[in-house]
Amino acid sequence: QLLYEKLGKSSRTVDTELEVKIEALRETQRRYNGVLRLTTALAAQMTAASHTQRALADAFADLAQKSPELQNQFLYNADTQRSLTRNGDILLAALHFFNNSLNTLTNKTIEDTLLTIRQYEAARVEYDAYRSELEASGGNPPELLLASIERHRRHYERLRDDSAVKLQLLHENRVKVMNKQLLLFHNAVSAYFSGNNVALEAAVRHFSVPAPP
Amino acid sequence: QLLYEKLGKSSRTVDTELEVKIEALRETQRRYNGVLRLTTALAAQMTAASHTQRALADAFADLAQKSPELQNQFLYNADTQRSLTRNGDILLAALHFFNNSLNTLTNKTIEDTLLTIRQYEAARVEYDAYRSELEASGGNPPELLLASIERHRRHYERLRDDSAVKLQLLHENRVKVMNKQLLLFHNAVSAYFSGNNVALEAAVRHFSVPAPP
Repeated sequence: QLLYEKLGKSSRTVDTELEVKIEALRETQRRYNGVLRLTTALAAQMTAASHTQRALADAFADLAQKSPELQNQFLYNADTQRSLTRNGDILLAALHFFNNSLNTLTNKTIEDTLLTIRQYEAARVEYDAYRSELEASGGNPPELLLASIERHRRHYERLRDDSAVKLQLLHENRVKVMNKQLLLFHNAVSAYFSGNNVALEAAVRHFSVPAPP
Repeated sequence: QLLYEKLGKSSRTVDTELEVKIEALRETQRRYNGVLRLTTALAAQMTAASHTQRALADAFADLAQKSPELQNQFLYNADTQRSLTRNGDILLAALHFFNNSLNTLTNKTIEDTLLTIRQYEAARVEYDAYRSELEASGGNPPELLLASIERHRRHYERLRDDSAVKLQLLHENRVKVMNKQLLLFHNAVSAYFSGNNVALEAAVRHFSVPAPP
């Protein structure tokens, strides 16, 4: 049937409004996965930097003990690196929470709706295949074919309505989740990079991010 | 001669004060190289994070255009990531400057003094080998041996004095360099992680760090 449609030899049942929404959802999934790849990379890079800063804090503290001539200079650097790793742990907890939420939204919630949409698309092809057969049969279709068409039409319409409902619910859910997560991401990153550990802890608490280990 | 000394069969000319300083310098070189490894790793990790943040700023800006329903949320995240990469470039310039200076100090300046020290140590072994030969010759040393000993003693003493002078100059130079570099490192890192880009730019300007490209 898909082949006949591509060759222009068969007509296609189209719900334009729905198809625009479906294409938009697939685009959204692609873009969110793009963001997820970047924020996952960022979390890994910040984790690596945090480990280095912890080791650097120890190296500076050690040198402060061994170098009376530069004790203060090594000490204040040790203190700075140590306090950065403490804040880094909180930032990383927020980044992981953001990544988990975005992954669930993109690869579970959106994917679940796309599964229904793929069933709807398959039902559409089947239904149109029966319709083509009906057209080919001229003015004298067998009873059995008419019954089949009716059954496939109902199946197609049910899945079309399911898809439309799921798309609507998903839209509301997605906007709610992203609204929250983008605010968390922004607040945690801004607080960390402005050294505001009170705001950083508040952001993490506000969004019920699990505490760092 | 080194073997005889280890077996306790030969005496060894010792300048205790100088040897303590030499051992301390070797220890300092090891520790500074340890710090250099960590700060080089940190610069690489911060560079990677900065690239990710730049890509993330673009992805957020793109999504802001494509998502009227979450435009503001994507926009403020794009702005935050973009301003962080600008400050990141300045921090990285400071880190590279610190790493270059620490590398020059540790692997050129200190290494140069250690070269003189290795020559001094070789001269000490040669001188002591001639002394052992003298002891072995009993009370009747040949003229030639006495002249050789005298020549090696002078060579040894010259290199010992050279080493002592270089160690003293190196100490002053090292404290001066590290004092400056540790202050730069601290000021740049603190300013960056407190979002204080005025202080960050001031730190970099104060230490004449070459501007980021």
